Amino acid sequence: MKTNPGRFFEDYRLGEIIAHAVPRTVKMGERTLYHALYPARHALHSSDEFAKTCGLPFSPLDDLIAFHVVFGKTVPDISLNAVANLGYAEGRWLGQVWPGDTLRSESTVIGLKENSSGTSGVVYVRTRGLNQHDEVVLDYVRWVMVRKRGHGPAPEAVVPALASVVAPDALPIPRGLDFTRYDFALAGEPHRWGDYAVGEKIDHVDGVTLEEAEHMLATRLWQNTAKVHFDATQRADGRRLIYGGHIISLARALSFNGLANAQLMVALNGGAHANPAFAGDTVRAWSEVLDRAETPAPGVGALRLRLVATKGAPFALRGEDGKYLPDVLLDLDYWALVPL
Amino acid sequence: MKTNPGRFFEDYRLGEIIAHAVPRTVKMGERTLYHALYPARHALHSSDEFAKTCGLPFSPLDDLIAFHVVFGKTVPDISLNAVANLGYAEGRWLGQVWPGDTLRSESTVIGLKENSSGTSGVVYVRTRGLNQHDEVVLDYVRWVMVRKRGHGPAPEAVVPALASVVAPDALPIPRGLDFTRYDFALAGEPHRWGDYAVGEKIDHVDGVTLEEAEHMLATRLWQNTAKVHFDATQRADGRRLIYGGHIISLARALSFNGLANAQLMVALNGGAHANPAFAGDTVRAWSEVLDRAETPAPGVGALRLRLVATKGAPFALRGEDGKYLPDVLLDLDYWALVPL
Amino acid sequence: MKTNPGRFFEDYRLGEIIAHAVPRTVKMGERTLYHALYPARHALHSSDEFAKTCGLPFSPLDDLIAFHVVFGKTVPDISLNAVANLGYAEGRWLGQVWPGDTLRSESTVIGLKENSSGTSGVVYVRTRGLNQHDEVVLDYVRWVMVRKRGHGPAPEAVVPALASVVAPDALPIPRGLDFTRYDFALAGEPHRWGDYAVGEKIDHVDGVTLEEAEHMLATRLWQNTAKVHFDATQRADGRRLIYGGHIISLARALSFNGLANAQLMVALNGGAHANPAFAGDTVRAWSEVLDRAETPAPGVGALRLRLVATKGAPFALRGEDGKYLPDVLLDLDYWALVPL
Repeated sequence: MKTNPGRFFEDYRLGEIIAHAVPRTVKMGERTLYHALYPARHALHSSDEFAKTCGLPFSPLDDLIAFHVVFGKTVPDISLNAVANLGYAEGRWLGQVWPGDTLRSESTVIGLKENSSGTSGVVYVRTRGLNQHDEVVLDYVRWVMVRKRGHGPAPEAVVPALASVVAPDALPIPRGLDFTRYDFALAGEPHRWGDYAVGEKIDHVDGVTLEEAEHMLATRLWQNTAKVHFDATQRADGRRLIYGGHIISLARALSFNGLANAQLMVALNGGAHANPAFAGDTVRAWSEVLDRAETPAPGVGALRLRLVATKGAPFALRGEDGKYLPDVLLDLDYWALVPL
Repeated sequence: MKTNPGRFFEDYRLGEIIAHAVPRTVKMGERTLYHALYPARHALHSSDEFAKTCGLPFSPLDDLIAFHVVFGKTVPDISLNAVANLGYAEGRWLGQVWPGDTLRSESTVIGLKENSSGTSGVVYVRTRGLNQHDEVVLDYVRWVMVRKRGHGPAPEAVVPALASVVAPDALPIPRGLDFTRYDFALAGEPHRWGDYAVGEKIDHVDGVTLEEAEHMLATRLWQNTAKVHFDATQRADGRRLIYGGHIISLARALSFNGLANAQLMVALNGGAHANPAFAGDTVRAWSEVLDRAETPAPGVGALRLRLVATKGAPFALRGEDGKYLPDVLLDLDYWALVPL
Repeated sequence: MKTNPGRFFEDYRLGEIIAHAVPRTVKMGERTLYHALYPARHALHSSDEFAKTCGLPFSPLDDLIAFHVVFGKTVPDISLNAVANLGYAEGRWLGQVWPGDTLRSESTVIGLKENSSGTSGVVYVRTRGLNQHDEVVLDYVRWVMVRKRGHGPAPEAVVPALASVVAPDALPIPRGLDFTRYDFALAGEPHRWGDYAVGEKIDHVDGVTLEEAEHMLATRLWQNTAKVHFDATQRADGRRLIYGGHIISLARALSFNGLANAQLMVALNGGAHANPAFAGDTVRAWSEVLDRAETPAPGVGALRLRLVATKGAPFALRGEDGKYLPDVLLDLDYWALVPL
């Protein structure tokens, strides 16, 4: 067999380090296409001049470009035979990605737990994205449910202890970041860190209808190879399952309207792809302020935000049974940096 | 309210200057995507080498990229609650946009006139696009019909006096432009300025069928946020209204076939989005030579051109009632620079 | 007539050299979009760092980008009135294309043969793609069936003698290429040149469903102007015919899964677009190893590969009548460079 059949649950060993293939040099073309695929308008990632007034040498690539590139590399080794992408934790954007950087990914298996059915199991990995200087630019934990190849005995169950939220003092701050000369008019909204209250909910108002061509362009750009995103013959109904990261980027971009000053994502506390998304769906987003924190950087505060993507009405999340409502696509929990 | 509800007619004041948000650094990726979205083939915007033989340091970004970026920034402040985009006048591309430039927009309210219905009014703005050196790269007047929020009294009507055409001696010429070494074979057609007669009409022959994914990619790339272009739930028929600028770029690109040497757009005399365009429409274009002028630049003449985009037969424009025929999408009046 | 009606069979003269219009500067944006349009993952074209370990200064543009750009320029002169694209031969990628290079194309008419029907004829051209230094980067022969304008007498039939395969000692090797430090883990597969046997067949497993927006974006990016790819009114069934090169790139990208180390295409021995492809088709690919050869470059071997794109099952190619099966879209014969 010359082709990659993907790994099954039995193929993972606790502590194993997997070096993922196909490093990727990202340049300005990635940003251009990102801004064509999503209604991304955060000024720090749109304008070199704006980034300079924030203490950066020029505009870094959007945080989620780094996420998608790093994530995409893991797919052939982690999620080709995955039944479900179950969760994220302890994600931190530890460095900016600049045009011309070359990214690669490696994952460490930190947990394994067979399901009671005996036909699948949960694999926990800590994935690191590194640049050409071997600097870690992104670090996060993900767990997926993976099919078993056979019916062999279960390994000893190891479930890692994961923080439910990245602590404020562990938030990474881009080197040089300084919001004391921040231009709110150019950024698009006047709301400062202090204008957001814990518990506040924001309806981001706008909606975007999904197209097959768009999500496939995006998913290929990140070199994500999962068949279900590209091959209409994989499902009986002929629909392609949209890469969950496409919805993350769409929701984050939509959140500009009300959170235009939440310029940088610096930590990913958790996230659930609540329901699958398909072409034709019209996606809207709303946010909830979960927490606030100060940072040591001048003029820079942090907001912990819930970001929900939905096909339905804002602010509805779970039913009486505690389960996500059928219209909810994404429930993401992250920290963003915001001017004071 | 953290989100932007858009301005209503009452929110504009004569003389007010609006600094539009989200500056944008444009690079070569924008050109690449532009050439994927439209069948653009004008050699000056395709080849650095060709641009050098025309006296430029290298190939500038397509004129309409500048237009779309500058226009897109005005949408949240000018046309979010617009009922119709009524017209353009006095447009001039005053400077070239080079890869790496950062553009921002500002608009001055130069006219206000409430409609007799009392439910809307016409807002006239002069919009300027500026680069990071505060040089104006584009200047144009646009007027839109905007809904009123309430039923308050009408402001005094002020309608600006606008030139029906940019005078030939006011046409901006890119610094260094010289067509005396122009290579007609590489450009694709032998027709010189002198080969075009006033009154001549050209059928550009080719047609392009519109796709939802394409117009949305384009419209997002220009950071244009008007809901109707992205959200299929905004109309009862589930169709998305295509950004009028998408049709301008498509028609201009199609006009290569017959006007391959009309290399640069330098002035926009006027324009009407005669009817809306939707995915599935097949768009064709035809042009009419309206005027000719000499310029002080070596080897460089100017043609005033009517550019019409249509779903129907060429050269048909208005019905017996004087109104645009239902198939006509665009009627644009511009000046282009052409080798003598 | 200002527009280009295309050439008819009578318009070609043996020995005539046609300088094709619209030179094109290609940069990193072209690579980005290429990787969004096709699931391209070969590491040499994905990572500057990987390319450096292979002896190159950085990552060149994908071989098929050069092919498409050079080919696209020939369309207005060669295939606008073509009935069919009949074959390729003697193709060689003689130089790498680097970001910032400007490409142009010229073709020499090397054969002419009227068909017995008297309504069309076969035109053979040798096309060369040149960069801004007048270096040939690509050279190939193509023959197409072109309609006759009238019923005039047939020219003397001249059919060029074409090699059925590029000889191993004529394979071009990129300057500096050295696979002795090749990183198989980063490249994605462990299979070396010696692991492939003549006659071996590889099912590349993955499938991609075609979308109208995607093939039009691609075809426009290469400035290919053939109406049938863009205009849904050209066919009674309203479908757009997909540019054959789109299928070549798609199949080549899919072949990563099993041929991840076939990093560079260096020669095109032949190829047939067996059946047309349309939006909605799900395309899969399989390869057959036709031959193996050594090269003088350190650590570098060559594989001659048949690459087949199909809507059907792998390894089925022709029916009992010797004709391509209806599901087969492409049968390509090329040489690739592979680490020893």
